[in-house]
Order: sequence, then C-alpha cells, then structure tokens
Amino acid sequence: MAKILSGKEVVAALNEQLSKRAQALEEKGVAPCLAMVRVGERQDDIAYERGATNRCKRIGISTKNFILPESATQEELIKVIEEVNNDPSIHGCLLFRPLPEHFDDEVVRNALLPAKDVDGITNGSLAGVFAGTDQGYPPCTPAACMEILEHFGIDLNGKKATVIGRSLVVGRPAALMLTSRNATATVCHTRTVDMPSVTREAEVVIVAAGRANLIGKEYFSPGQVVIDVGINFTEEGTLCGDVNFAEAEPIVAAISPVPGGVGTVTTSVLAKHVIEAAEKTLAK
Amino acid sequence: MAKILSGKEVVAALNEQLSKRAQALEEKGVAPCLAMVRVGERQDDIAYERGATNRCKRIGISTKNFILPESATQEELIKVIEEVNNDPSIHGCLLFRPLPEHFDDEVVRNALLPAKDVDGITNGSLAGVFAGTDQGYPPCTPAACMEILEHFGIDLNGKKATVIGRSLVVGRPAALMLTSRNATATVCHTRTVDMPSVTREAEVVIVAAGRANLIGKEYFSPGQVVIDVGINFTEEGTLCGDVNFAEAEPIVAAISPVPGGVGTVTTSVLAKHVIEAAEKTLAK
Repeated sequence: MAKILSGKEVVAALNEQLSKRAQALEEKGVAPCLAMVRVGERQDDIAYERGATNRCKRIGISTKNFILPESATQEELIKVIEEVNNDPSIHGCLLFRPLPEHFDDEVVRNALLPAKDVDGITNGSLAGVFAGTDQGYPPCTPAACMEILEHFGIDLNGKKATVIGRSLVVGRPAALMLTSRNATATVCHTRTVDMPSVTREAEVVIVAAGRANLIGKEYFSPGQVVIDVGINFTEEGTLCGDVNFAEAEPIVAAISPVPGGVGTVTTSVLAKHVIEAAEKTLAK
Repeated sequence: MAKILSGKEVVAALNEQLSKRAQALEEKGVAPCLAMVRVGERQDDIAYERGATNRCKRIGISTKNFILPESATQEELIKVIEEVNNDPSIHGCLLFRPLPEHFDDEVVRNALLPAKDVDGITNGSLAGVFAGTDQGYPPCTPAACMEILEHFGIDLNGKKATVIGRSLVVGRPAALMLTSRNATATVCHTRTVDMPSVTREAEVVIVAAGRANLIGKEYFSPGQVVIDVGINFTEEGTLCGDVNFAEAEPIVAAISPVPGGVGTVTTSVLAKHVIEAAEKTLAK
C-alpha cells in the first residue's frame, strides 16, 4: 500500500510556518499584502480569488482587490499594474489569466515587476526558474509539487525524475526546478514513443498530462513516488487526477491524491511567495 | 565507422542560403546589419569579433562596432545599447560577456530589445526558448546543435535525446529546444547517478560537459547520434571536445568532430538570426 502524500498535511505545516513569519513581519512593521487583479467575472477566477483570500487571511496576509470590467482597455489594466508596482504596501500580485482577447498577454504580464510576481507569469520569473535563481517566483503549481516532495522528505539529489507534460505553467518549469534540485529530469509528452517504458525507469514521476485517469498501471513500477497535478471531472462529475489512482496506488511507494493533493497546496505556495516578497523588502 | 557530422558542410549550406536571403533583402532596400558591442580588450572577444565580422561580410551582412574602454560606466554602456535599440538600420546585436565586474549583468543584458537579441541573452529570448515561440533568439551554441541535426536530416520527433550539462547557455536551452522539437529530452549533470546508463539509452546525445575527453566509450551505444559541444585544449595544446572521439566514433552511428563541428557553425547561426531579424522588419 502506497503512502498517501496528503496535501492537507503540507498545507498545515506551511500555514503554521507562514503564520509565524507573517507575525515576525508585523512586529517589524511590515504587513504582508497580496494584490489580486481580475478583469471580468469568470467563475473560476472568482472561486480561486475566494480561496486565496481565505488562505491569506488565516496566515496573516491582507489582500487588496482590483476588479476591472471585461470591457476595460489595456491602458487601464496596465495603469492598475503600475499602481501595484509602485505601492510599497503591496508585496505580491496575482493577475488572473487568460485575459479577454483584446489584451496583449505578453505586454500585460511583463508590465508587472518580477519582484512582485508571486504567481510566476513574467519573463523575469521565467528566467529565474530557468537559471534556478531567486529572481521573481516560479508558477505556483510546479512549486506546489516541489513543496510536497520536500515536506515528505523525498530527496531529489541524483534521482531520476520524469515529468509527463510539457506545458509552460507546469511541465517545463517542473523539469527545470527538478534539474536545479539535482535530479536527472526527463520531459515526456504526447509525441514520446513508448512513454510507459520511460516513466517506469523514473524514481519520481510528476504527472501533468491534462486528461482524467489517463496514466494507468503500465506507467508505474515499485518504489516510485508519484505526484499527480491533474484536476479533471469524470463524466459522473467526480473530481479526479490524471493518474488512475486505483491502478497506481498498489504498485508505487507514495502518491499524491486528487482531490487533496497538489491543488490543495497551490494557494499556500502563493501565500509563501507573498511572505518571501515581504521579507525581501526588509532585507533591503 | 560513424558518419562525421561536419560543421563545414552545415556552414557551406547555411552561407549559400543566407547569402540569397541577404541579397533578397538588399533588393527590398534592407541592408542587414549586426552591431557588436564590446567592453575592454579581451583576446577571446576580439577573436570572436573577427570571426563573426568575416562570416557576416561573406554573407552580405554589414557590421558596426561599438567599443568601450574597460573603465566605461554602466550608464555609458546602456546608452550604447539604447542607441542600438533605436537605430532601425541595425537588426541584431552581439554584446560580449562576461562584462567587467562593475557592471550589473542582469540589468545590462535586459536593456537590449529581444527583437535585436540575436545571441539569446535577454530574459525575453529566454522566454521564447522556454515557450518554443519565436520571441527573441536562442543562444547560438544550442541553436548550432539543432542546425547540425536538421542539416543531416536527423529526425527528433519522438526520439530520446539526452543532454550532458545543465548550463544556462547550452544544456538547459538545448533540452528545451529538443522538447519543442518533439524529442523526449533528459538533462544529465555532475549529480546524475550512473550517467553512462542514462546516456546509452538515448538516440541523440548532446555533450556539453565542459571537460576535455571526459565522455568515453561507456557512455555510448550503437546507432546513436552524438553532438559534441566541448571546446578544450589538451595539455599538449591540441583542440579537443568533451567526447573521447577515438573511443566513441567506432561505436556510434554519427558524431560531430572537434574541431570542425559545433564551434564552426555558431557564427553562421548568429548571421542567420541577423537575417531573420532583418526579414521581420519587412514583415511589419
């Protein structure tokens, strides 16, 4: 039976640690604050906004909402981002994307200062992930994968780690973060030939394939650690991951569940980045 | 006996193609031009500058040299870069690095417009490599590896490709470029456990280990294509690669030599990027 890498346990540990750091900041006169910039009224943006607000509140991070109508112009949005950049009381910023089609995504996201880019959307943050430096912040989802591995004491040093998926927000940054942590990282994707033979060789497998229950028993071998990034709904409306959990769990050594895994940890990682950004203002 | 992936052959083909494109540009009133910005008098910078100037001249690209004394201030250097950015007759810019220690490398390199960053040093170019888009340009050395593979018709689609080395200028961008070309890419490095067992599994191996003759027969298996990025001098003063050529060549299917391999192709790739940048100004 595999060890279940519960996101709740990671979140509890993170929240405890972050609350203390938030308090220490308050004592030094710094009130950590996250700006959330939303254009329009997309339901999933609003849901994430609510989750992030609650998570921040519990930790001791205040939030500041900037909400623009869907008809807002690019100039109006960039003016808001510049306001965030120039406001020393704001330490991090979450910009909801995708933006409505009349915005130039490249221009808008790079208007944000990397130092406040706690969700890893700017080219500056990307360069930081690429180089393994602390310029900007990595996207929260691959960072949540690393947080889970670290919490459960899973050493990556010299380990073979394979990522399924090559997206810009998960697969590619996850592979670079694994490389920076001294793992030997491989990226698999739809064009990989005989993917199961590749993933079975790995000691750690991060699955971000984007399809419900796609990754079955043939992909796994005994002793592996599996992190499932997928968030999908079955036809019956049940939440599930990209891994066929029932097939994988009896084989591998440890696996993160869905729900209750990576998705649970992302808002805590966002909060962690805000705390780090606030701490950096003190260090200056 | 392995096929020798001769850089000269790639250069000859590239030069012919690029000369035609340069002529076509001239006919449309665009004279492709590369700016080279150098601070100080480092011998290897001057040697590369000479090589790049000759290569460009033969193809029909003019060059414009900006030379600052080693004592130049950051403001002076950035002023030169801004001049390059604002001059529509300049299409690409090569900035020699490392810069003297009193410069902030991050600030200086990102002062250059990604559209003119033909050597892939800005965060914008890095984001393009990361995403596999044509924003900016990839660094010339990993791009030269891709050029060699393409010239010799080596299909990467679905192939296992392993990179030895995780540097920012070769290993990491090479792995991302392989991923964008549908290969299943793995990055090995000094912390990889039993590296030979990993590289023997690959169909394409790009070696950027940075040490003379380090990679011997135990790393290779029959049928492989090997690209050697290394440029080293033996104790006897002979130029050699990172691969022990005498050991690898009898085993593998194809291998790029040193000298006469990747290093030969980099200035042609630089010229190709300048031509592309000039062509983009027409498309606007």
